[in-house]
Amino acid sequence: MNPPDPSTAPIGVFDSGVGGLTVLKAIRELLPGEDLIYLGDTARLPYGTKSPQSIERYAFKASRHLADRDIKMLVVACNTASAVALDVLRKALAPRPVIGVVDPGAEAATAARPGGRHLVLATETTVRLKAYRRAIVARDPDAQVTEHACELLVALAEEGWLDGDIAAAIVGRYLAEAWPAADPPDSIILGCTHFPLLRPAIRASADPATEIVDSASTAAGVTVTALDEAKLRGQRASGGNLTLLASDGAKRFARVGGRFLGEELDISDVELVDI
Amino acid sequence: MNPPDPSTAPIGVFDSGVGGLTVLKAIRELLPGEDLIYLGDTARLPYGTKSPQSIERYAFKASRHLADRDIKMLVVACNTASAVALDVLRKALAPRPVIGVVDPGAEAATAARPGGRHLVLATETTVRLKAYRRAIVARDPDAQVTEHACELLVALAEEGWLDGDIAAAIVGRYLAEAWPAADPPDSIILGCTHFPLLRPAIRASADPATEIVDSASTAAGVTVTALDEAKLRGQRASGGNLTLLASDGAKRFARVGGRFLGEELDISDVELVDI
Repeated sequence: MNPPDPSTAPIGVFDSGVGGLTVLKAIRELLPGEDLIYLGDTARLPYGTKSPQSIERYAFKASRHLADRDIKMLVVACNTASAVALDVLRKALAPRPVIGVVDPGAEAATAARPGGRHLVLATETTVRLKAYRRAIVARDPDAQVTEHACELLVALAEEGWLDGDIAAAIVGRYLAEAWPAADPPDSIILGCTHFPLLRPAIRASADPATEIVDSASTAAGVTVTALDEAKLRGQRASGGNLTLLASDGAKRFARVGGRFLGEELDISDVELVDI
Repeated sequence: MNPPDPSTAPIGVFDSGVGGLTVLKAIRELLPGEDLIYLGDTARLPYGTKSPQSIERYAFKASRHLADRDIKMLVVACNTASAVALDVLRKALAPRPVIGVVDPGAEAATAARPGGRHLVLATETTVRLKAYRRAIVARDPDAQVTEHACELLVALAEEGWLDGDIAAAIVGRYLAEAWPAADPPDSIILGCTHFPLLRPAIRASADPATEIVDSASTAAGVTVTALDEAKLRGQRASGGNLTLLASDGAKRFARVGGRFLGEELDISDVELVDI
């Protein structure tokens, strides 16, 4: 297929739900002039409980839909899809750049603390896939990695209870379960796209010397680099348009997604697509 | 099809995940001599975000699988499936009795407090479907019904954080949001199969005069009545066998489901089925 015109084509961002909107928000802050298209495959979420074959198939379908809308690159803002489907998506979308969220997070953590001890907070599925462990140890064989599942943080972020006593107590309990307080980790990696919303609560609970690595903002940084390397930066002063697509539940997408994007969304802002 | 032999045939219990095991547990306590077969459609959960047509199709497939295993009656231990698929399932499984969880909960609440004011705690989907509201008002046109979505309680129950400060704070916040403390409701209906695990925390937070109606245990009571009316009680002294089926993720089913069933489960206790 012909590569789209980089001066006008949008960047595609794909997730199983609303969580990836934290990645989209970070990209928008770094690249305010670029048009962005976000696709949340809400009809099939959660990807976590599905087989790798199913996830590859879903991700492939989503990427085809975004390719039909002439994206110039794809950001896979979903830890599960990043862990299992990147190769398939790169093949499907070549020559467009395709980046995930796991590698940028692993890269940032190992660069900040070489030979360090890293605590990855993630969903059960990401922990089970050992995606961060593999990505970190591939970069830094001396690194030590502990992965801890924090399912309640997903519901907490979706409910919007981001500060106050309940958030502090839940975050504090997970950190205490995951790691002895007497000897804190060098870094805590937010290995789920929902968790940047809880970054202030995590920062407040963690040891002051521990680095907090946010895979949403690190993925946004890698997006800029990839865009520049491929000479795909947009040139329009009038860019910055945002298109939001969901495969089911536009009303919930607007309500919960607004929280992740940091602005009020209306159901009319979300286009339902059949993928 | 020929109805199975009631003296040896099992009772089928169906849910989208592990939550319905609270219903199974309640049935087991009332009917210790009956064989039970539980099917959790974990490959397709959550049903809540799916269309009614999809839910009907999934529930139909699950019921066919259980019919092939010669169940003598079916308990739909899933609020969403109870709200949208009971008619389809009754037709598919006739002459076997098929009962859901919504009607027994509504029946118990209106019988306990005629003309009362009822607070239904449920998932977003059950609230959106207005299933309890309709079932309550059909029985008692003078009843007042408020439905409140409590998504965090699902994650809290699955995480097993059932008591202590965090459970108390979350339950307290939902109750305060849902209803003015100065004028408490006559009943609180636990309109999600996950919530009976949090009953002690809900009881402690609620006004002492408020009746707590648990749709899992009321559904178990209706199961006994339906079995007796259809003359389907088992006669074997050696009954009480339990078969657990899941359509995906046997390991997680065993770990989380054990909490709902109130006994330790091993992965070998769960049979994976393709439905």
